[in-house]
Amino acid sequence: DITQRVITYFHHVSADKPLLGKRVMITAGPTREAIDPVRYISNHSSGKMGYALAVAARVLGAQVTIVSGPVALTCPSQIAKIDVESAEDMLKAVMTDIDKQDIFIGCAAVADYRIEQASSDKIKKSAEKMQLALTRNPDILATVSALPQRPFTVGFAAETSNVVDYARDKLKRKKLDMIAANDVSIADQGFNSDSNALQVIWDGGQHALPAMNKQILAHQLMSIIVENMSNK
Amino acid sequence: DITQRVITYFHHVSADKPLLGKRVMITAGPTREAIDPVRYISNHSSGKMGYALAVAARVLGAQVTIVSGPVALTCPSQIAKIDVESAEDMLKAVMTDIDKQDIFIGCAAVADYRIEQASSDKIKKSAEKMQLALTRNPDILATVSALPQRPFTVGFAAETSNVVDYARDKLKRKKLDMIAANDVSIADQGFNSDSNALQVIWDGGQHALPAMNKQILAHQLMSIIVENMSNK
Repeated sequence: DITQRVITYFHHVSADKPLLGKRVMITAGPTREAIDPVRYISNHSSGKMGYALAVAARVLGAQVTIVSGPVALTCPSQIAKIDVESAEDMLKAVMTDIDKQDIFIGCAAVADYRIEQASSDKIKKSAEKMQLALTRNPDILATVSALPQRPFTVGFAAETSNVVDYARDKLKRKKLDMIAANDVSIADQGFNSDSNALQVIWDGGQHALPAMNKQILAHQLMSIIVENMSNK
Repeated sequence: DITQRVITYFHHVSADKPLLGKRVMITAGPTREAIDPVRYISNHSSGKMGYALAVAARVLGAQVTIVSGPVALTCPSQIAKIDVESAEDMLKAVMTDIDKQDIFIGCAAVADYRIEQASSDKIKKSAEKMQLALTRNPDILATVSALPQRPFTVGFAAETSNVVDYARDKLKRKKLDMIAANDVSIADQGFNSDSNALQVIWDGGQHALPAMNKQILAHQLMSIIVENMSNK
């Protein structure tokens, strides 16, 4: 399949395998927060960037696990996948195995809020107006980065304005090792697109990766992660 | 492709074409109601039943248009498709061409509510709790059935309890010619599944279609529609 061909191709490109013996966990895709058995809140994340990062990490020799929200992608070969729906499910799946990870990349577009009281029956429409009471979801990235023995922790920031400012703030606030920021307001970049551009930011450094195919972009981002890890 | 094979197969089964020269419009899939550029409210409808009905109507000779929310299906051959996102988009697309239709089947799981004020920028999370103000969406089925020169109008009801009672109420309230009700709380039926069971209800009659493949089910439902139309 195509994944196998990508892995084979990059094997030639990256002669050495800096992540051999390392474990990498990547969250990918959106989460879905149930309103009732039929309706939900979600977002436009396709999971493509997370899955591309999984392949890139595998190419560099890592043992890779994707914790994936509902996406239309099939799991790349040689990669483990845990399927989840909600943010709470995703946190649970991440925490089960996080102590064994060397790198954690939070690439999923985790819903910030869930419905306070999801209904077990389909809600009948009646009133002209309705208020949906939402409550904050757990912050998976912040939970991982607060662990005493934490993996190298990389976050993503998808923004529609002031992208770099927001990302730098998120890097500090959540005490991440690195953050990759993208502007999802630009057409043909980010969510659901096959290409993307990223501003990669860490404490004391920044690297702009211009718009390119997500699989190539993923390989470049993984290289930056590996370089920064060895500088720690 | 598979659709072509299905059409060819059913051509043998249905020697006559009772819908030759007739136009059929079918809405299918979910709608997506934007919260902001990234987040939305949607539902688990896969569009499979609507697309199967389109093929079934085509087999019976009709000229078919699908008005489709975002689904992972490709349009069957010999069928026109209009892509929409929100309920308001769907209503607009339906109304553009509804006066030419002989049959209208509202199979889409249209979101009952949209966000009162969708944000053009990604909403930043901050508060622990949040209220999402919703407002009723236009009722596409009721709008069509209220037209002075309306097509034969068929609705769907996806329920999780009291399925037949709710459906019979919806039939009367929206002045439909027919309604097909299914219980989406049963595993492996309805949303996202390849099979389904339906209770088909009209004024003075009812017909239970037991669980079966959606394409075969669609053909049986179309036959019931054709029979009821000719009895009018």
